[in-house]
Amino acid sequence: AILGAIATALNGETKIALPPGVGAAPGEKPLAGRHVVVTSGPTHEPIDPVRYIGNRSSGKQGHAIAAAAAAAGADVTLVSGPVALADPPGVTTVHVETAAQMAAAVEAALPADIFIATAAVADWRVEAAAPQKIKKSAVLPHFALAENPDILAAVAQRRSGRPRLVVGFAAETESILAHARDKLARKQCDIIVANDVGGAEGAMGKDENQITLITPSGAETWPKMRKEDVAAKLVRHLAQLLRERLDA
Amino acid sequence: AILGAIATALNGETKIALPPGVGAAPGEKPLAGRHVVVTSGPTHEPIDPVRYIGNRSSGKQGHAIAAAAAAAGADVTLVSGPVALADPPGVTTVHVETAAQMAAAVEAALPADIFIATAAVADWRVEAAAPQKIKKSAVLPHFALAENPDILAAVAQRRSGRPRLVVGFAAETESILAHARDKLARKQCDIIVANDVGGAEGAMGKDENQITLITPSGAETWPKMRKEDVAAKLVRHLAQLLRERLDA
Repeated sequence: AILGAIATALNGETKIALPPGVGAAPGEKPLAGRHVVVTSGPTHEPIDPVRYIGNRSSGKQGHAIAAAAAAAGADVTLVSGPVALADPPGVTTVHVETAAQMAAAVEAALPADIFIATAAVADWRVEAAAPQKIKKSAVLPHFALAENPDILAAVAQRRSGRPRLVVGFAAETESILAHARDKLARKQCDIIVANDVGGAEGAMGKDENQITLITPSGAETWPKMRKEDVAAKLVRHLAQLLRERLDA
Repeated sequence: AILGAIATALNGETKIALPPGVGAAPGEKPLAGRHVVVTSGPTHEPIDPVRYIGNRSSGKQGHAIAAAAAAAGADVTLVSGPVALADPPGVTTVHVETAAQMAAAVEAALPADIFIATAAVADWRVEAAAPQKIKKSAVLPHFALAENPDILAAVAQRRSGRPRLVVGFAAETESILAHARDKLARKQCDIIVANDVGGAEGAMGKDENQITLITPSGAETWPKMRKEDVAAKLVRHLAQLLRERLDA
């Protein structure tokens, strides 16, 4: 009887009062019928079969955004670099390693209504990765670099089939707003989400994030929040913006 | 009463027949009173505050060896690079990022009876990591490299306070045995554990590993096993070897 009571309490009919705005009311699926493509995590650019150039992105913010978009009713494709996170439920996750693979996976996932480039994509790859492990020798190796494809700019500057909203992230360690505004103009995206990834207070790998939304018309700084809360608020904001653009 | 019965079943006096060799019989703690230092995982060598040079070591084999040594009764210090694994219970774990930090942590952990260098330590670091994130520009960056400290050789070649057994790992992608024998002689350690990390069959990140033990007197290849089983067998082998050396 005790076990039965526990089972009823856990799985049963009990109604729980939810705060306003939580639940499955129609207005709560503002992205129903929309396709959202999100990139997340770092890329790994091989030096040889065991070594690579990587970065400290954990994928937590990008994965949270993909999950929030799915919760808002969207059909979500998440293109993820190597992370230590589980695939978010209800999201189509494509796993890649390099920037070139990520670019190809994004291209294959389009068209989309919203593209959110959260991944920290390597700007450079090693031009000629060694086919075998480089042995230590008296001579220090030199890795010649080549520029990687710019995924955000390529999507933002598409002549046909451009997503209605293209959102980039700017992970900076200094002059954050200036760099983010410059990135917005250069890449021609609709919104740049700027955050500070430098020093002990930086967002990379952490569970919280403080962001500033930058659009051609202004900037809006949000309080420091858990990455899940940043994701939920960002998704609500984008759903509203998408509706305005479609109504315009 | 039901909950009470479950609690008794889970925590109570019930005797369970263990297979021979399992349990806490005296012979089952062959490393009781011994200090074992294990390194595990990759190192990350910073390029700037967000980028680094890393390698594909998951730390699974090193962490399994630390856990197996603790299960064999040893006092274990695990010096771990950045991994997505939990600290093994019953083991003192020291977290580091770079090869220089790992070298310092190993030095601080000595003296030890056995040193097992499982970590994939970067051979090179970026000579002058940038204090701020390097911006993409028309000019490709060039990262001048410097040689990292050789932790295995430094421990194996100590004049005083050398651990009785110094064990290295050789993660190779070609000419595996030749490279491992060369490493054994060059570093002056007692055993090299050679494994293949190349291609789709390589051990890095996988749950299984096939190793060859190389000593000055010969080589012994073990069947492919789960990394936990490799760890348990290796620890038994080292405990036996240590006893022989102490008796000699």
